Amino acid sequence: MNLRLNKIEHLGIAVKSIDEGNSLYTKILGVPPYKEEVVEHEGVRTSFFQVGPNKIELLEALHSNSPIAKYIEKRGEGLHHVAYAVDDIRDEMNRLESEGFHLLNSEPKLGADNKLVCFLHPKETGGTLIELCQERS
Amino acid sequence: MNLRLNKIEHLGIAVKSIDEGNSLYTKILGVPPYKEEVVEHEGVRTSFFQVGPNKIELLEALHSNSPIAKYIEKRGEGLHHVAYAVDDIRDEMNRLESEGFHLLNSEPKLGADNKLVCFLHPKETGGTLIELCQERS
Repeated sequence: MNLRLNKIEHLGIAVKSIDEGNSLYTKILGVPPYKEEVVEHEGVRTSFFQVGPNKIELLEALHSNSPIAKYIEKRGEGLHHVAYAVDDIRDEMNRLESEGFHLLNSEPKLGADNKLVCFLHPKETGGTLIELCQERS
Repeated sequence: MNLRLNKIEHLGIAVKSIDEGNSLYTKILGVPPYKEEVVEHEGVRTSFFQVGPNKIELLEALHSNSPIAKYIEKRGEGLHHVAYAVDDIRDEMNRLESEGFHLLNSEPKLGADNKLVCFLHPKETGGTLIELCQERS
């Protein structure tokens, strides 16, 4: 098997309130968040929960122009994106472009949790916002 | 850390056509599905992709009364549910009930992929359909 994506690195979940989301997800997952982080240029406040090899990322909008605010306005709270861990994000970006996908950013950009990230638009993936992420060295 | 949920066992994605979904996700994930399975009593045809420790489950409606048909009619294709692996599903069901959640089935039921499963309603989880699943021995 030619494993291209290593695992689900995290699942992003849109919430109206990170405080209420943290309280709710602490009950669901049985563990508290291990960190919170603001990503100003993405317009989000995030919190992270560890679930074995995977993470749950809650996302709250910092302002009304945040993609999360627009997402919640249109679709309500809930599953927002899925992020796959890759070893070499440029290699994976090239592979996906050669498969005909259009990447939302042509260069890897800095995301939350010390990652280089790239997104695929839901219009080309059957309705799912997909993130590739590579740990920054 | 008191780990209650072991990992994201799989992520369920609603598709109109399992054949088209398989073709698309083979390109995205870089690997083909490793199996297909029909779950008559849930009204779904499924396919599974392995991504490291996690799986992607595509779900196609078998008929117009399938929950997947209703989901796609209301929200379109895309992320449908997240399933967490647990060691003892009854223990987790008891824990979540004691936290105030109402389970969609009071007894574990047989799901796809040889699993005992139980669901939490999106109304109580901040918009996400959550599945607990335990490998059947």
